[in-house]
Amino acid sequence: MGKTRVLCSAFLEESVPNWLKGSGKGWLTAEYSMLPGSSAQRIQRERNKVGGRTHEIQRLIGRSLRTAIDLNLLGEKSILVDCDVIDADGGTRTAAITGSYIAVCLAIQKLKGKYPSLQSALKTQVAAISVGIVKGVPLLDLNYEEDKDAEVDMNIVRTGTEKFVEVQGTAESQPFDDKGLQDLLTLAKKGIQDLFEVQKKALSL
Amino acid sequence: MGKTRVLCSAFLEESVPNWLKGSGKGWLTAEYSMLPGSSAQRIQRERNKVGGRTHEIQRLIGRSLRTAIDLNLLGEKSILVDCDVIDADGGTRTAAITGSYIAVCLAIQKLKGKYPSLQSALKTQVAAISVGIVKGVPLLDLNYEEDKDAEVDMNIVRTGTEKFVEVQGTAESQPFDDKGLQDLLTLAKKGIQDLFEVQKKALSL
Amino acid sequence: MGKTRVLCSAFLEESVPNWLKGSGKGWLTAEYSMLPGSSAQRIQRERNKVGGRTHEIQRLIGRSLRTAIDLNLLGEKSILVDCDVIDADGGTRTAAITGSYIAVCLAIQKLKGKYPSLQSALKTQVAAISVGIVKGVPLLDLNYEEDKDAEVDMNIVRTGTEKFVEVQGTAESQPFDDKGLQDLLTLAKKGIQDLFEVQKKALSL
Amino acid sequence: MGKTRVLCSAFLEESVPNWLKGSGKGWLTAEYSMLPGSSAQRIQRERNKVGGRTHEIQRLIGRSLRTAIDLNLLGEKSILVDCDVIDADGGTRTAAITGSYIAVCLAIQKLKGKYPSLQSALKTQVAAISVGIVKGVPLLDLNYEEDKDAEVDMNIVRTGTEKFVEVQGTAESQPFDDKGLQDLLTLAKKGIQDLFEVQKKALSL
Amino acid sequence: MGKTRVLCSAFLEESVPNWLKGSGKGWLTAEYSMLPGSSAQRIQRERNKVGGRTHEIQRLIGRSLRTAIDLNLLGEKSILVDCDVIDADGGTRTAAITGSYIAVCLAIQKLKGKYPSLQSALKTQVAAISVGIVKGVPLLDLNYEEDKDAEVDMNIVRTGTEKFVEVQGTAESQPFDDKGLQDLLTLAKKGIQDLFEVQKKALSL
Amino acid sequence: MGKTRVLCSAFLEESVPNWLKGSGKGWLTAEYSMLPGSSAQRIQRERNKVGGRTHEIQRLIGRSLRTAIDLNLLGEKSILVDCDVIDADGGTRTAAITGSYIAVCLAIQKLKGKYPSLQSALKTQVAAISVGIVKGVPLLDLNYEEDKDAEVDMNIVRTGTEKFVEVQGTAESQPFDDKGLQDLLTLAKKGIQDLFEVQKKALSL
Repeated sequence: MGKTRVLCSAFLEESVPNWLKGSGKGWLTAEYSMLPGSSAQRIQRERNKVGGRTHEIQRLIGRSLRTAIDLNLLGEKSILVDCDVIDADGGTRTAAITGSYIAVCLAIQKLKGKYPSLQSALKTQVAAISVGIVKGVPLLDLNYEEDKDAEVDMNIVRTGTEKFVEVQGTAESQPFDDKGLQDLLTLAKKGIQDLFEVQKKALSL
Repeated sequence: MGKTRVLCSAFLEESVPNWLKGSGKGWLTAEYSMLPGSSAQRIQRERNKVGGRTHEIQRLIGRSLRTAIDLNLLGEKSILVDCDVIDADGGTRTAAITGSYIAVCLAIQKLKGKYPSLQSALKTQVAAISVGIVKGVPLLDLNYEEDKDAEVDMNIVRTGTEKFVEVQGTAESQPFDDKGLQDLLTLAKKGIQDLFEVQKKALSL
Repeated sequence: MGKTRVLCSAFLEESVPNWLKGSGKGWLTAEYSMLPGSSAQRIQRERNKVGGRTHEIQRLIGRSLRTAIDLNLLGEKSILVDCDVIDADGGTRTAAITGSYIAVCLAIQKLKGKYPSLQSALKTQVAAISVGIVKGVPLLDLNYEEDKDAEVDMNIVRTGTEKFVEVQGTAESQPFDDKGLQDLLTLAKKGIQDLFEVQKKALSL
Repeated sequence: MGKTRVLCSAFLEESVPNWLKGSGKGWLTAEYSMLPGSSAQRIQRERNKVGGRTHEIQRLIGRSLRTAIDLNLLGEKSILVDCDVIDADGGTRTAAITGSYIAVCLAIQKLKGKYPSLQSALKTQVAAISVGIVKGVPLLDLNYEEDKDAEVDMNIVRTGTEKFVEVQGTAESQPFDDKGLQDLLTLAKKGIQDLFEVQKKALSL
Repeated sequence: MGKTRVLCSAFLEESVPNWLKGSGKGWLTAEYSMLPGSSAQRIQRERNKVGGRTHEIQRLIGRSLRTAIDLNLLGEKSILVDCDVIDADGGTRTAAITGSYIAVCLAIQKLKGKYPSLQSALKTQVAAISVGIVKGVPLLDLNYEEDKDAEVDMNIVRTGTEKFVEVQGTAESQPFDDKGLQDLLTLAKKGIQDLFEVQKKALSL
Repeated sequence: MGKTRVLCSAFLEESVPNWLKGSGKGWLTAEYSMLPGSSAQRIQRERNKVGGRTHEIQRLIGRSLRTAIDLNLLGEKSILVDCDVIDADGGTRTAAITGSYIAVCLAIQKLKGKYPSLQSALKTQVAAISVGIVKGVPLLDLNYEEDKDAEVDMNIVRTGTEKFVEVQGTAESQPFDDKGLQDLLTLAKKGIQDLFEVQKKALSL
């Protein structure tokens, strides 16, 4: 993920949101934040109100990781994921997803003695990457400079079973045609394959 | 859009956000809200804090409509779009985009006498539709009942020049494969063509 | 009510505020809001804090409609009234009261099968109107232009049994004498009689 | 005012709200608060959000005192009135108006050397009182026990020129007829006459 | 305490914060506020957010008074202390502590009939004073003018058993050496002895 | 500092708070936060309101570091310090002060080419340590387990010129006598000497 660094942690709580009480199902939710010093320009803390961008990213991380978990097997427990960006150089939300998957796995490894159902709750690997079109050229894993100039910005989340969890493509300055879309999808699928290997390596340590 | 009804309005303001002051460029921003009585279950007003879903939708509407406008030709002015859902039966965010495009055009028609540059600021038509996979079958323009059961939910925004502005596909319960993705894109492109006709008709009145 | 249009809806909830729990009594509460596009000048949404004017109006609507209901017969249920102003041309708070009375009646008609006690909970008709003194002349149902110039502004709420629920007279620029007060009361009583007929007609549909 | 005690203070600021800048006109605004220890039941501080009742009272105090001042003669200055209830035994809002009038006069006496225009800005005396109907009997200046049981609660604000500034009558449990209204107005007018004498005495010290 | 005046009140509540439920222990918490008119410059109300200084003072008052109480003997009850500054002339936080001790004692005297355990819950007398170094000279009980110019500002809280509860010394403009620290401690200990006498006198009334 | 780890960063801004505009003086302010994953129990983010403890710590860090800087020589600029706790094992506030001093020095080294006055603005070294009394024994640099059981908790901030900036001693469960206070001061002075060496080593890299 280039120079981007995100601290990811996962906690297990023996409770669920009100609307799931009595359902027997669990939940996973995520919070995302950029540390003030993570960027060359100081990032202001979101202490009075959480901005739209942060909400959007948190929801994306949560949805993506819930695909990795069988919430019925989890039982009435919640996994709380925290992603704190230490250094931001593009692709922080996809790095947060890829890294949090590892944090969730480590938490499950640590707690499966106490909660045996946890192990089987893990359904599939999940990883994410950003792709984009910069000056007409499709690029993988954009850094800050490339991202700033991108005509199209796309975040892709995939499962270890080679399916899509999220396809979020946005025309920043130029709408894109079918060919552009297909090129980006191809690029992303390849990049995510590499991330799956990195995740496996991290978890075998 | 089925039984969904969204009140869309557009205002022009002779100012821009701080970060655009002195740039000569304009801006367009959107607010979205569901009236308490728009659903069978009362929707709570967002008076203390605006939820993540609302933020996400507002940002999508704003980004989509900015593609229709040449912000350089607009000059240092802001278009404020308001989308208030009167009746919600699925697809409120895409209905808001399609309807707001009309509101923006009507505002421009009304004000082009006073601000001649406005007319040429309109670059292209923009419309949006939702598609999804329900029990394995790709469907166009899901209503509330269909949306609730959808395995995959996708919102597509396109320009009159037949390009993508946004592709937002989310696996709600089942990740989707390439074929599913391509089927949804095909369906959406067709549906949006029909909406472009409806917009033209509304504007010729 | 001239060009003023207010969407009124009423929901029944099977709960009451904490301070009524165990009392056997019900409650009715109201929320009021102006849509951003309801006025020629865009009205800002009250998303961070609800202003004093809104609080004042909501409390007035709630108090007025509670007079129409026997809260003991309602039982431990709450009626939630929502008044959303679509077009504002003066007298929005009195229009909200007069219209919400109809919404409450329709809700009761719909739900009396399920909750037979509801029917008898309705005690009396309630309607409201604004009056004012403009350039020395008492006027009924002021529109925006008249309201802006009014020396005295008064809102009157009455029951179908020809009694006062609220008398709220305010000197905007000129304090008023006894004769002015009596003239306004006479005018308002007549105007409200007409509104009672309109309500009856709406409910017989 | 019985056992009710309200600390009233007035400050002069050399600025006005934005919407009055450049108008040459001044403004007067009021804040009202009950100290936690002012009642037998502790009153919670309004630190996160100001409640509807407080907003309503603050606006009433502000409107009432603005009638006493010629805002054009005041010039682009603001008078900030603060009313803090030390002991609450009914009628705190009317006590706040009557007391604040004295605070405003004392502030003007103190500052008229520095700002000669202040003296002539004072147009008329203003005082307020509460009246109500308790068990069918009209009563003047209700204390807490009487207020709790009142069928009708009315606050009247009058000028030294014997005119009405505010007439705010509310049926708490029983709507009231014309005779009830007229009785309360008569009672209030007499009570306010006495308060005008008290104010004069306080200011001659 | 010179011209400083603080209204102190104490309430007893039959509940404790969540984290103490079931512990059998009680709690004491304090709120502190300056009235807008307590200073020559109007003090703004903390209605949207409570500032850092207020938080710091409230925590200090709470911690100090908890030393006076045996929270185990108090049982699952809370004492709520409110300190509202009427006139501020330096040392308001220490005046609040010294005065609140009296309020807590009076509340206990009043309620010990109903709750006999209260009497024995009172462990020791607590009082506080400010000291400081102004132009190199250690001073006791600084007023506003002295406080403004102080190089070092220190607040000391002591028990009737001649021990320290809090020692809070802050270099405002000049760091201080050991001798400065010892001089201030000596001065404070003497001053607090006098306050203990004042408290005893107030409580014997 | 044991297992405690705090990320400290410093930014320079070419502006000052309003109350310093035109004074020619600069300012330094600090923000402090604990990451959710910094403790065995997840720490909740302070997104709606910043708690009293955080305010207290931020103000302490700010005051302490301002002693290191000649704010007149800084000119109308602000240094913004951010302290984010990655791992919390006691003494996070003192670690934040000691670490932030290094961050401020590094920022000054980096920016002194652009702003030559910065170099001379640095007056003295500043470091901080916690001490406490645990089971009657004075201890240096308490870890989480020791801190939890401490009877007395004290934070000391000192300058390189061997003077006190802050002395903040608090009796958690037992008030302390003169001897206890002197023992803690002696211990802290020794510990801070060691931290000054660590800071020098870090800055010579």
